[in-house]
Amino acid sequence: MKRSIEDTPIVLIGAGNLATNLAKALYRKGFRIVQVYSRTEESARELAQKVEAEYTTDLAEVNPYAKLYIVSLKDSAFAELLQGIVEGKREEALMVHTAGSIPMNVWEGHVPHYGVFYPMQTFSKQREVDFKEIPFFIEASSTEDAAFLKAIASTLSNRVYDADSEQRKSLHLAAVFTCNFTNHMYALAAELLKKYNLPFDVMLPLIDETARKVHELEPKTAQTGPAIRYDENVIGNHLRMLADDPAMQRLYELLSRSIHERQ
Amino acid sequence: MKRSIEDTPIVLIGAGNLATNLAKALYRKGFRIVQVYSRTEESARELAQKVEAEYTTDLAEVNPYAKLYIVSLKDSAFAELLQGIVEGKREEALMVHTAGSIPMNVWEGHVPHYGVFYPMQTFSKQREVDFKEIPFFIEASSTEDAAFLKAIASTLSNRVYDADSEQRKSLHLAAVFTCNFTNHMYALAAELLKKYNLPFDVMLPLIDETARKVHELEPKTAQTGPAIRYDENVIGNHLRMLADDPAMQRLYELLSRSIHERQ
Repeated sequence: MKRSIEDTPIVLIGAGNLATNLAKALYRKGFRIVQVYSRTEESARELAQKVEAEYTTDLAEVNPYAKLYIVSLKDSAFAELLQGIVEGKREEALMVHTAGSIPMNVWEGHVPHYGVFYPMQTFSKQREVDFKEIPFFIEASSTEDAAFLKAIASTLSNRVYDADSEQRKSLHLAAVFTCNFTNHMYALAAELLKKYNLPFDVMLPLIDETARKVHELEPKTAQTGPAIRYDENVIGNHLRMLADDPAMQRLYELLSRSIHERQ
Repeated sequence: MKRSIEDTPIVLIGAGNLATNLAKALYRKGFRIVQVYSRTEESARELAQKVEAEYTTDLAEVNPYAKLYIVSLKDSAFAELLQGIVEGKREEALMVHTAGSIPMNVWEGHVPHYGVFYPMQTFSKQREVDFKEIPFFIEASSTEDAAFLKAIASTLSNRVYDADSEQRKSLHLAAVFTCNFTNHMYALAAELLKKYNLPFDVMLPLIDETARKVHELEPKTAQTGPAIRYDENVIGNHLRMLADDPAMQRLYELLSRSIHERQ
C-alpha cells in the first residue's frame, strides 16, 4: 500500500505564533502531528491539544521516530537548543527550521537530512490565517528532501517556491519593512488617535486601500501626502503637534525626508 | 417641484488626485458638475471630459452661479488662490475645501457660507476607489450648510461624521502614518527586492494580512518580528545588509528601537 504524504509523522519543536498556525494548518490537512515540544508547558499543552498530539518540555523526551521535525523557535533559542534537538534522532529524519533569517547551513554536520520551510507571513496565535495564499520558500540538503518539503507545502499553499539562504535573507529583510514596520505605523497612529480621543477604526478604510493600491500600482506611484514635495507648511504643523513625543517627531521627519528624497 | 440634491450645480476647483476621484464619484451619482478649474489645462480638460463639464484655467472665468464650490488644491496653492476663488461669487454660494490639514476658518471673512468636506482616503488618478466605505468628515459655518454637505456626502458614503478643525487635524496626522508612511515602507521593500532581483508581488499576501490583522487585533497586539525583543542577532544582520544605504539603515534602526520601546 502506498502511504500518503499526510501519514508523515511530524514533531513540532516550538509552540509560538508560527508553530501554532502551521501545526493547526497541517493538522486540518490530515497530517499526523505526533508531538509538540516547548520550553513553556502551557504553550506545549495548548498547541498539543489543538492538534491531538503528545507534548513535552524536555528535549530528551522528544519522539525519535518522526520523519519530519519542524523547528520553529526564536533565533536565539534555536542556536541554544540545536544540539539537544538533533541528538538521538534517526538517520532518516528530516530536520527543518522555519526562519527567514537563519541560513540552512546551521544544520550542516549535525544531521544528514535538513532544510528550511519558510512561510512568509505574520502569525499571531489569536488569529487564523488563510494558508492558500502564503508564499512558502523551500531549501533542502538534497533534491529529494526539497521535493518532499514542497509536496507538504503544496498541500497548504498555492505559492511554493525554491529559495536559497541568500534569497530568503533578502525576503526576510523586505518583509520586516512591509509587515513589522508597517504595523508599527498603525501602532503609532493608534497611539495618536487615543491621545486625541478618536477611534482607531476610522483608519481601517485607509489602511485597506493603501494595501490594495499596491496590487495595481508600484508603491512609488501610489505614494500620496505632504512628504512627496516636502510641504513645509503641513509638515511643520505636524512636527509641532508631535512636540510632546520627540522620538515620534524624529521618526515623522526622517520618514518624510525619505519619501521626498526617494520620490 | 421639489428639486433633488443632485441638481446642485457644482464647480470643482482643482483637478488632482482627490478632485478627480471625488468629481467622478459625484458625477456617477447624478450630480451636475458644471465646471472644472485647474491651473494646468490638460488636467482641467481631462477631468472635465470625464464628468461632462466645462473647464477653465482662468479663475476669473469660473462660473459664478454654482451652488457648491469644492476646492481641492495643494495647501500652498489654496492660500495663493483663495482671493481669486471667492471673488465675484454669489452670496448663497457654499465654499468648501477638502483638506485634512487646513482649518475651516481660512474662509472666514471671505464668504458667508463655507465649510470642509474631507474624505479621508488616499487617491490616485490611476485607480478607482469605492467611496461607500470612505469616512467623510464635515464641518460648516452653519447647521444648515453642514446638513447640506452631509446629505451630499451620504449619497457617496455610509460613513459621514461631524469633525471640527482640531479633530480633522489629528485625523490627518494619524492618516499620514497609516497611509503615507505605510506606503513608504512598501516602497522601501520594493527597492530592496529590486536590488536582490526578487519580485515585489511575493510581498502582497503579507501586506494584505498585515492590514487585515488590525481589523481584529490592536496594532500593538498584532506586532511581530525581531524588533519586539530587539533581537540583536537578526537586527545586526539586517543593518549590515543595509550598509550600502545609510539612510535606510538609520530608518531601520530607529523603527526597530521605536517598536521595542513602545511594546
